[in-house]
Amino acid sequence: MKAHDKPILVFQTDFTYAEGAVSSMYGVVKRVDRELEIFDGTHQIPRYDVWSASYRLYQSMPFWPEGTIYVSVVDPGVGTSRRACVARTADGHVVVTPDNGALTHVARHIGITEVREIDESVNRYPDTRGTSVFAGRDVFGYTAARLASGTIGWEEVGPSYPVDQIVMLPLAQPALEDGVLTGIIDIVDPNFGNAWTNIPLSLLAEAGMGYGDLVHVSISHDDVQVLDATMPLCRAFGDVEPGELLAYTNELMNVSVTMNQQSLVERYGVGFGAGWAVRLSCAS
Amino acid sequence: MKAHDKPILVFQTDFTYAEGAVSSMYGVVKRVDRELEIFDGTHQIPRYDVWSASYRLYQSMPFWPEGTIYVSVVDPGVGTSRRACVARTADGHVVVTPDNGALTHVARHIGITEVREIDESVNRYPDTRGTSVFAGRDVFGYTAARLASGTIGWEEVGPSYPVDQIVMLPLAQPALEDGVLTGIIDIVDPNFGNAWTNIPLSLLAEAGMGYGDLVHVSISHDDVQVLDATMPLCRAFGDVEPGELLAYTNELMNVSVTMNQQSLVERYGVGFGAGWAVRLSCAS
Amino acid sequence: MKAHDKPILVFQTDFTYAEGAVSSMYGVVKRVDRELEIFDGTHQIPRYDVWSASYRLYQSMPFWPEGTIYVSVVDPGVGTSRRACVARTADGHVVVTPDNGALTHVARHIGITEVREIDESVNRYPDTRGTSVFAGRDVFGYTAARLASGTIGWEEVGPSYPVDQIVMLPLAQPALEDGVLTGIIDIVDPNFGNAWTNIPLSLLAEAGMGYGDLVHVSISHDDVQVLDATMPLCRAFGDVEPGELLAYTNELMNVSVTMNQQSLVERYGVGFGAGWAVRLSCAS
Repeated sequence: MKAHDKPILVFQTDFTYAEGAVSSMYGVVKRVDRELEIFDGTHQIPRYDVWSASYRLYQSMPFWPEGTIYVSVVDPGVGTSRRACVARTADGHVVVTPDNGALTHVARHIGITEVREIDESVNRYPDTRGTSVFAGRDVFGYTAARLASGTIGWEEVGPSYPVDQIVMLPLAQPALEDGVLTGIIDIVDPNFGNAWTNIPLSLLAEAGMGYGDLVHVSISHDDVQVLDATMPLCRAFGDVEPGELLAYTNELMNVSVTMNQQSLVERYGVGFGAGWAVRLSCAS
Repeated sequence: MKAHDKPILVFQTDFTYAEGAVSSMYGVVKRVDRELEIFDGTHQIPRYDVWSASYRLYQSMPFWPEGTIYVSVVDPGVGTSRRACVARTADGHVVVTPDNGALTHVARHIGITEVREIDESVNRYPDTRGTSVFAGRDVFGYTAARLASGTIGWEEVGPSYPVDQIVMLPLAQPALEDGVLTGIIDIVDPNFGNAWTNIPLSLLAEAGMGYGDLVHVSISHDDVQVLDATMPLCRAFGDVEPGELLAYTNELMNVSVTMNQQSLVERYGVGFGAGWAVRLSCAS
Repeated sequence: MKAHDKPILVFQTDFTYAEGAVSSMYGVVKRVDRELEIFDGTHQIPRYDVWSASYRLYQSMPFWPEGTIYVSVVDPGVGTSRRACVARTADGHVVVTPDNGALTHVARHIGITEVREIDESVNRYPDTRGTSVFAGRDVFGYTAARLASGTIGWEEVGPSYPVDQIVMLPLAQPALEDGVLTGIIDIVDPNFGNAWTNIPLSLLAEAGMGYGDLVHVSISHDDVQVLDATMPLCRAFGDVEPGELLAYTNELMNVSVTMNQQSLVERYGVGFGAGWAVRLSCAS
């Protein structure tokens, strides 16, 4: 097999680059097979935040070539009884992750066709059997590398288990009723300060709204309202003045809310997850 | 064409690695051509800061091999009428960027020999035509990848336009008059806290100053003085005690001001850009 | 020589990615030899912190393939008389670094078999002889690249010098006396907030302690106690409730102290280095 016939490995973790963990993890991959290509997905998932891990997989993995192996290590339960698994997605990617909810968005939006529990009696870096705290290096990265290099086949990962046993976080569906769209803030971009809903553009269109319309947006956290405003639905940030509110369609074609060249997330204290409700209706 | 005959792609953006954008952008590159090599220039350009994007191109790109394609995405006007372009530099590099001022330093110090507007009717990632907010993934990265892989030739980028139409930020020239050097703080290093002027060592030498001399440095922001001090002109930081001021020649052979093992930028609140004036004269 | 026969280069510095230095440094490597593979170890070593540089080498380098060249640039004395060197380790790695204490942990725990001073009259990037401030780009990265590419051989690095002349930081040995283990906090993980001692699991076992035991831990800085508590010795973080203290064995098989899903380092203000003493005894 030539180097470029082997799958790419992309890693996302909550390790940051502030210490030596990412380097050790990548070193083990290269010890398994020098030819493997490694990319940083991100190592800045908020600590222990399985929801963010789940969202980032859904956001980024589909843009990689088919066959890419995405290793996700946000693993507060490392060393406990949570399953370590390898999953195959309906669009041809492979995810190596603790089965702790990190597969939620991918399972819901893309689909998982098969999942196997990693058998650590075989798939564990042999030099470090005394420690139980660094599965990223010793189990997830190591298994992903062996799979990518062809050292082990799919069946040698470990026993398969039913896809409907995958741990799922509660994920409400967006809805349209009486002209009002309801959903959640599914994630935020902490850098630019955009808030991304789980309401697709198609549902917005179904409700009769489109670019150029004014929309009424309210965002609440556990029933406390943090934003209630009318804003235009725009194609581009620059369609409003700097500092003004706008709704737009993000790169996953979901409705999002932000301010031009300012952080809505910081200005209004907007967070994300199941407790962050959004309501959207036409105000034109 | 062998893998190593294809140009390297280097990316600089203001995205940070805090969310999934860099990963999606790199994934699309690999979907275009698995063999392409990708490097992070930096993803920590200050948000919307076209000046910094311009400076970082000038600072880092010349050290890459000829032919390297540098993709710069600091793009507050994404989705508006600003041009997306590909430029060729006089030293044999290629820049893919919004034409919004990001080419200023390279045009001034290195020279641009040719520029083309990206024709998005051809050079746009086909799966995402409904969104206008992520040109890094859908236009800049995608076009750079197609160019690097040989999928499109230089002419297929889009129509060329005159180099003198490139958007330029106002960039004052350093000057020497009556023994006083004047210029600007062109950039700072936010990590080590050094302030870099646009005054080259050669102009300092022309003014009769050299290593070992004492120099008088003043820095002002819009006519408010933030630093006024005499310090030695040194070869190395360690030529003064920790915490002491020094002038030195930075890695681009421009005069710079700092403190040994302390941040001058934080201590004196020094910024950068057209409004940050520096004056320098001999005090020996 | 085929591309994958050439050693990997891994870089660790205190540069951060906030400006253009890493990019320039990597560009020079690629100018030397397009085929070389480059990885980020980390660029977030605390500024000027040679102790951390030393620890991160010891932590991460052993997990890379034999022959890997690790370039470490934490260099407060750049341009002064400190030696620039290339060292060979007993486990088959190569380190390129200023000889300023950064080799301490590797020399102590792994061993250094040979060291050479870089002869900058030969091994210095030729385009930049006027500046003395960026040895990462002009000396360390450049020399590492030439060595990896086979442009220079080991002897052409420069003259060898006795291994016992390598600059060593004071590094106390852990000890067991009357059932009490003493050592230091050798490093912390600033992200997860774990404090890592230099006491190996083997010494703990020698003292008769093991998983499931209660241990008494005290941490002092220059004789001021910052933590004094009894906690279980666990295999996994999840063996105690979130927010509770635990001792565990870290990925280098040394005893470490932390809280489940909280930062002990932030909660108790724990630092690291020679002045941070730890005492540990059985409390079961």
